[in-house]
Amino acid sequence: MEQLEYQEGRTEISHMGKVALIERLTADMESRNATTRQGIGDDCAVIGNSVVTMQTLVEGVNFDMMYTPLKHLGYKAVAVALSNIAAMNGTPRQVLVSVAVSNRYSVEALDELYAGLRLCCERYGVDLVGGETGTSRAGMVLTVTAIGEVAEGCITYRRGAKLHDLVCCTGDLGSAYAGLLILEREKVTYQADPNFQPDLAGYDYVLERFLKPEPRLDVVKALREQGVVPTAMTDISKGLADSVLHICRASHCGCEIYEEHLPIDYQTSRVCSEMSKNMLPVSCALNGGEDYELLFSISQKDYEKVKDMKDVHIIGHITEEGMPAVMVTPQNTTITLRAQAFQGEE
Amino acid sequence: MEQLEYQEGRTEISHMGKVALIERLTADMESRNATTRQGIGDDCAVIGNSVVTMQTLVEGVNFDMMYTPLKHLGYKAVAVALSNIAAMNGTPRQVLVSVAVSNRYSVEALDELYAGLRLCCERYGVDLVGGETGTSRAGMVLTVTAIGEVAEGCITYRRGAKLHDLVCCTGDLGSAYAGLLILEREKVTYQADPNFQPDLAGYDYVLERFLKPEPRLDVVKALREQGVVPTAMTDISKGLADSVLHICRASHCGCEIYEEHLPIDYQTSRVCSEMSKNMLPVSCALNGGEDYELLFSISQKDYEKVKDMKDVHIIGHITEEGMPAVMVTPQNTTITLRAQAFQGEE
Repeated sequence: MEQLEYQEGRTEISHMGKVALIERLTADMESRNATTRQGIGDDCAVIGNSVVTMQTLVEGVNFDMMYTPLKHLGYKAVAVALSNIAAMNGTPRQVLVSVAVSNRYSVEALDELYAGLRLCCERYGVDLVGGETGTSRAGMVLTVTAIGEVAEGCITYRRGAKLHDLVCCTGDLGSAYAGLLILEREKVTYQADPNFQPDLAGYDYVLERFLKPEPRLDVVKALREQGVVPTAMTDISKGLADSVLHICRASHCGCEIYEEHLPIDYQTSRVCSEMSKNMLPVSCALNGGEDYELLFSISQKDYEKVKDMKDVHIIGHITEEGMPAVMVTPQNTTITLRAQAFQGEE
Repeated sequence: MEQLEYQEGRTEISHMGKVALIERLTADMESRNATTRQGIGDDCAVIGNSVVTMQTLVEGVNFDMMYTPLKHLGYKAVAVALSNIAAMNGTPRQVLVSVAVSNRYSVEALDELYAGLRLCCERYGVDLVGGETGTSRAGMVLTVTAIGEVAEGCITYRRGAKLHDLVCCTGDLGSAYAGLLILEREKVTYQADPNFQPDLAGYDYVLERFLKPEPRLDVVKALREQGVVPTAMTDISKGLADSVLHICRASHCGCEIYEEHLPIDYQTSRVCSEMSKNMLPVSCALNGGEDYELLFSISQKDYEKVKDMKDVHIIGHITEEGMPAVMVTPQNTTITLRAQAFQGEE
C-alpha cells in the first residue's frame, strides 16, 4: 500500500511561497498546441482569442458558513472568476461550475447557491453551460471555470508594463477586508452568546464589498470605449502589494506607488480605528485582499483619457528593472512592498 | 447570522436522482451568447467549435489515498476529463487544474501528483495551461477543466440516436470495478493487520483499469479515419446502464442491448467468482462504473466500417420512443436497465 506522507525530505507547502511552488510544479512545461498562447502564470490562460480561468472556493478556508448566505456565495464564486477575465481585458461569455457538498447540505441549500450563481451570470450576460454536482466528505468546495473573449490586440498580460508607465487601480482598496473584520468580530461575540443579535447597521458598504464583490467589467468597457489598452493588468485579489509584485515580476520592472493616492473609503478607516489603534487602513489596502479591483499600467500618452475616468485612480508609476516595488509615504519615506505569495524572495 | 440547515421542507440530496437534481437547479436557463451551442446536459459544453468539461475528484469519495498512488491520481484526473472530450468526438488541446490540499500533504506529494498530471497531458498532446493550488481543510480535491476541438459537423451529442441505429461500446466493461473490489479487499485485510503485505499479482489488468484509465481517443481517431460520425455518444463512467439511459433520454428512444455481446474480460469474471457466488460480471459491466469507455450509436449504413474496428463492439440497437432501455439475456428474458442517477424515474 502507498504511504501518503513522505517523512524523508518532506517540505511543508506552507513553508514555500505560492509563486515558487507553482514555478516548481510547472517547470519546463512546453506548449504542444498552436492555439495555446498563454499558459500558467497570468490571470487567465489564453487559447486563441479566448481567455480561460478557474477559481476554487473552499469552505472553512475561503468562506465561513457562519456568515456567508449561500446566495451570496454563489454570486461571489462567479464574480471572482469573472474578475480574472476582466484582468485580461476580456468580456466573459460562459462559466462552468463544479460543486461538491456534504450531506449537511439540502437540495434547498443548493437552490439558494444556484440562485446566486445564476444572478451573477445574468448580471454580466454570461451563460452557465456546464459543471457537476458531487459529494464531499466535509463542507463545500466550489470551482468555477470562466471563459471570455478578447479582441485581437487587446489582451492585457501582467508582463507588458514599461518604464514610466502610469500605474492605476480601480474602486477603493481594503474595504472587503474591513467587512471581513466586522463579520469575524460579530461571529466571536455570537459564539460566546448564541442569544446575541449581531448589529451590522452602518457597515453596509464594507460588508457588501466582502460578501458580494463585483468584477470591474465596467472599467474594462470604459477603457475600450476610450481606445485605451493597458500595457499590463491583473486583478487585486490578495491585496495591492501582491498585485504590484506580480506585475513587476512579470514585466521585469520596479514600481513606485504613493500612499496618499491610494483610494480608501471612510468606512474602511472607521472600521480600522474601531478595531485597534495600531490597525492602519493602508495595511488593509496593501495586504487585506478580496477587493477584486483592477491594477493596471498605461502608457503616459493615455493620461488624458484615463485621468477623469470614473473609479480609476492613478496611484504611481513604473520604475526600471532592478528597482524594487515600493510605497512612498506622505512623509516621503519609502516602504518596500511584500506579499505572502512571494515569501522567501527579496 | 445565517442558518445553514433549513429544517422546514428539507430535501436530502441523496434522496433525489442526479438527473432530476441538475434539471431542477438549471431549469429555464437560457443562452445569452451566440457562441454557446450546448449548455448543461451533455458530456461537454459546446462553445463555437470548442468542447469544454469539468471533472472533480474528492478524496474519500472518488479516491482513497490508502491505495491510490499520487502519480496515478494525477494521471487519472486528466484522463477522466479527456474522456468527456472523446465522448463529444473531440480532440483535447488544453487542461486547467485546480488542487486543494490540506497540510497533510507535502511539496513532494504535489510533485508526484503533478508528475502524473503532466504524464497524461504528454501522452495525449495536451497543454496544462492554468489552474491553481490552494488549501483545503481536509483531504484533497482535484478539479480538471479540459478543452478540446471538434471539426464542424462532427460533434456528437447524446441526443442524436435514431430508430434502428446500432449501439456500440469500446474496450471491455466492469474491469475497473473489479480492480476496485480487489483494492478494497486488500485494504480491509491491511487495516486488520498492518504487517500484512498485499499480494496484487495476477490482478494487473483490472488494477490498471481502475487506477490508470485511458480516454478512448484512439477510437475517436479510428472513427474519423473511417469517416464515421456516431449519431450519439457518451462515455461510460458510471456503468453501462447509466450511459444507455442518458442516450435514450436525450434521444427520446428506447434501446435493446444483448448480454451475450457485452465485452467482459476474463479477469473481471475471475474476480467476481472470487468475491461471491452471487456476484455476476454483467452487474459490474452495467453498474460498476469508472471504465471510461465510449458508448455510441451509428447509422446502419456504417456497419461495414465499424464491424471489424479494433476494440469496438456492437452490443445492441435503438428502439422507438416510448420503449424502455433493456438488456436481453441469452435465455431471451428482458431486464429493464436502471441507474442511480435516474432513481425515482420509471
